[in-house]
Amino acid sequence: MDNTVRWMRIVEGNAFVRFIDVNLRGAGQVIFQNNPLTGLFFLAAITWGAISGGAPQIAIGAFVALVVATVTAMLLDADEDSLRQGLFGFNGMLVGCAVPTFIEPSLAMWALLVIGAATSTVAMLAIANVMKTWGTPALTFPFVLTTWFLMLGAYSFGAVTIDGMGPPALPNSMSTSPFSTAEAASQALPLLEAWLKGPAQVFLIDDWLSGILVVIGLAVSSLWAAGLALAGAAIALVTSLALGASLSDISGGLYGFSAVLTAVALGCVFYAPSWRVALFTLLGTIFTVIVQGAMDAAFAPIGIPTFTAPFVFVTWLFLLPKANLKPHPHDKIANGVVGGDAAK
Amino acid sequence: MDNTVRWMRIVEGNAFVRFIDVNLRGAGQVIFQNNPLTGLFFLAAITWGAISGGAPQIAIGAFVALVVATVTAMLLDADEDSLRQGLFGFNGMLVGCAVPTFIEPSLAMWALLVIGAATSTVAMLAIANVMKTWGTPALTFPFVLTTWFLMLGAYSFGAVTIDGMGPPALPNSMSTSPFSTAEAASQALPLLEAWLKGPAQVFLIDDWLSGILVVIGLAVSSLWAAGLALAGAAIALVTSLALGASLSDISGGLYGFSAVLTAVALGCVFYAPSWRVALFTLLGTIFTVIVQGAMDAAFAPIGIPTFTAPFVFVTWLFLLPKANLKPHPHDKIANGVVGGDAAK
Amino acid sequence: MDNTVRWMRIVEGNAFVRFIDVNLRGAGQVIFQNNPLTGLFFLAAITWGAISGGAPQIAIGAFVALVVATVTAMLLDADEDSLRQGLFGFNGMLVGCAVPTFIEPSLAMWALLVIGAATSTVAMLAIANVMKTWGTPALTFPFVLTTWFLMLGAYSFGAVTIDGMGPPALPNSMSTSPFSTAEAASQALPLLEAWLKGPAQVFLIDDWLSGILVVIGLAVSSLWAAGLALAGAAIALVTSLALGASLSDISGGLYGFSAVLTAVALGCVFYAPSWRVALFTLLGTIFTVIVQGAMDAAFAPIGIPTFTAPFVFVTWLFLLPKANLKPHPHDKIANGVVGGDAAK
Repeated sequence: MDNTVRWMRIVEGNAFVRFIDVNLRGAGQVIFQNNPLTGLFFLAAITWGAISGGAPQIAIGAFVALVVATVTAMLLDADEDSLRQGLFGFNGMLVGCAVPTFIEPSLAMWALLVIGAATSTVAMLAIANVMKTWGTPALTFPFVLTTWFLMLGAYSFGAVTIDGMGPPALPNSMSTSPFSTAEAASQALPLLEAWLKGPAQVFLIDDWLSGILVVIGLAVSSLWAAGLALAGAAIALVTSLALGASLSDISGGLYGFSAVLTAVALGCVFYAPSWRVALFTLLGTIFTVIVQGAMDAAFAPIGIPTFTAPFVFVTWLFLLPKANLKPHPHDKIANGVVGGDAAK
Repeated sequence: MDNTVRWMRIVEGNAFVRFIDVNLRGAGQVIFQNNPLTGLFFLAAITWGAISGGAPQIAIGAFVALVVATVTAMLLDADEDSLRQGLFGFNGMLVGCAVPTFIEPSLAMWALLVIGAATSTVAMLAIANVMKTWGTPALTFPFVLTTWFLMLGAYSFGAVTIDGMGPPALPNSMSTSPFSTAEAASQALPLLEAWLKGPAQVFLIDDWLSGILVVIGLAVSSLWAAGLALAGAAIALVTSLALGASLSDISGGLYGFSAVLTAVALGCVFYAPSWRVALFTLLGTIFTVIVQGAMDAAFAPIGIPTFTAPFVFVTWLFLLPKANLKPHPHDKIANGVVGGDAAK
Repeated sequence: MDNTVRWMRIVEGNAFVRFIDVNLRGAGQVIFQNNPLTGLFFLAAITWGAISGGAPQIAIGAFVALVVATVTAMLLDADEDSLRQGLFGFNGMLVGCAVPTFIEPSLAMWALLVIGAATSTVAMLAIANVMKTWGTPALTFPFVLTTWFLMLGAYSFGAVTIDGMGPPALPNSMSTSPFSTAEAASQALPLLEAWLKGPAQVFLIDDWLSGILVVIGLAVSSLWAAGLALAGAAIALVTSLALGASLSDISGGLYGFSAVLTAVALGCVFYAPSWRVALFTLLGTIFTVIVQGAMDAAFAPIGIPTFTAPFVFVTWLFLLPKANLKPHPHDKIANGVVGGDAAK
């Protein structure tokens, strides 16, 4: 593409633009896209969702944390190639989305956000180093682990006020009777909105317009990714309705976001698309919905969200076998972290 | 043996019989026996226990899940040698025992069972790949992990009804006064039944006759394994009585099943029998009882069973050192999964 | 040093003195010091704290468990070099400090203590073997894991009586208003005592005089270690006050002990001191305080202490990147376990 070439020429010639480019790619890498334009759409989705939801601090947090995580990687002399692909930005940015979503703004909140963003880069280096042993990427686990510590810590620290998660409670089995897709539709459940909120909730945004922006951002970089994101959210919707999950969770897109990520990761990023891979991805996506329900129950007593852990655990489980499915030729993108000898 | 040779000749000549053979070996591998006759005894133990307990769906579940897990391995082109030894059947079969034990029969239950059995094979490939790094087998962890997700998920899904586990509760320290073996005997505790239920509970069956069938199945393949299974259950009985564990758990064999597996694994499967190994196995088996008590308390707030996790964790802990104890010449059986270069 | 040479000559010439030497080094290795005199100071700190606190069984437990863990390593033919450096003693000794702190003295308690100390050596061999894959030491995780099992088990076993931990409860967010350092000082909080209790709580001792003995013991072996221990405790004090953590936890040194270990480990044991390392260590130490608060909340429902897990997890996270920071030339000390080919 002409535009790509032109952009890369500007990037090479100007350190400031290069820094912008790295951060935009960092945003794009949340859903595996090494593409600054995709990152711009994702940041737009976050900004729109944050402002329309009356919580602009979420957008500010995302920007700040993205930059802090990237700068931390630079200070630690992280692998230049990985850095340029944005691989040290996406976990930090998600920390920046999560902290202001669940903790009220205060000096202590911003301190936790910055410390968490910096630590997410250390965690990325550590987890990538471990997972490399089996030729498998760190995915969003650095974000998940770091933010679990921050959210749990909030229960012990009086200087931060929890808002929007918990309270801790023993899990209760769903007392509602099994719920059919038909019934859901008859109650005029806004199924379309629930579906589109899946891609948005990857960034903890509860807004279906943001979901459309996310899908467009994906389409700019990869039509496969955009299609699989929509398919993953749809599979999650059908599965969670069929299993009779909580309607408020379903309609908020909370069964969709991990499924979106699993579908994209297995369906076109780490395996090359094929019918066999499609079936494998379908099993993985359905199991992601089950793991989402499982982790929601398991985390009830400690009152914190699962974040994208269902995606991480299921995708690891489905990548580790390397079950003779043809690996995607471009998978270097995600394995290239820290030296990158992912060969095994 | 003449019969073995004759059987292998039939197996080689007939694809259908070969499929039966692979599935029977899969059943046998639950306690490390690559032997179709052992598998037949184990299936008989499950069937007897299920029917006499009024829950035939458990036996049906075991059969269905065994076949689904094996077929999934075939579809994924898993390592032929490992497949022929039944290494992709046993985790699935245990999923099939567990799901109908704790969830009421329904369409959703059967769907979870089939999805879980298929996923257990993916998990087996993944976990075997990771543990191979240290020359250590996956054991029953694929079953444990998959079924934890299914059971926890049941709390979030209204389409399935939990029956026979939970409810979630904070752990309470045992208020009963320490209980001596003598007292237990004087209360006419059916110690003999409790002892024999240990081997049966490996398959989640609460029936001492099934336990006898399991031990006979082991003896058909290995007298060492049969003896160590009985020794493991006896050590668990004495230890749990001495520590004053819950009498209902003890008499149900719930302190026995993981100890049976640890004793067989350490005592004759992965180390060659010797006095030094016997002492090591004794320590491991006693510690398994402690870990069983520990995990029962830890899992109380989330209301799911530990399954064989105490066995898995303790056996990993006692295999990973490879403490200059002579490795068993036949350990290829369990390490041979996926390529099988277990050498380290 | 003349005295060192003279001592080593006595050690070489006498098996009994050698055994004493190994055990003293084992005590010293709790804070990474391969030095028998340091170990003597640590044992003095434990003994003083135990007796002045009216619980001499803690000191006896520490001695017994230290010897049991060392002897277990000998029986298992563990790597001679690692053994001579005391690497198989420190986890056992910590088990011996913890068990009598949280369980009332009884025959069953002593049995758990001895079984736990022996198992801690097996766990050390296992975990060191795993972590060696990434050139990273086991730290005190063998102690942490073993003792979690023992403490959780205590809830299931009527023969042991829990004293000084729990009861299990759902986590509550701190309702106290944010607490400033100034307010704390104005309430005459004994900040100095809180600070000095940090190093003592590494051994589960709640006594500031013991803390001074610990720091002197470190200084005898390494002034860097002593300085970083005091710095780590101070950073923890300031951070926990700023975040508004529980004042009783702060004044008991419960936010200090893991921070002390992280600061020493990152600041001078595994990385060579430099300004860059100092900043990295500062981030790690602050994050250790957050993880301490997080794990306190996460463990509330199961009613057991975190022990030094916050130190272990954060230090692993900060060692695994090996972020181009110059590795310390002496790091062989902690990696030398079991064969010791830590090269990677």
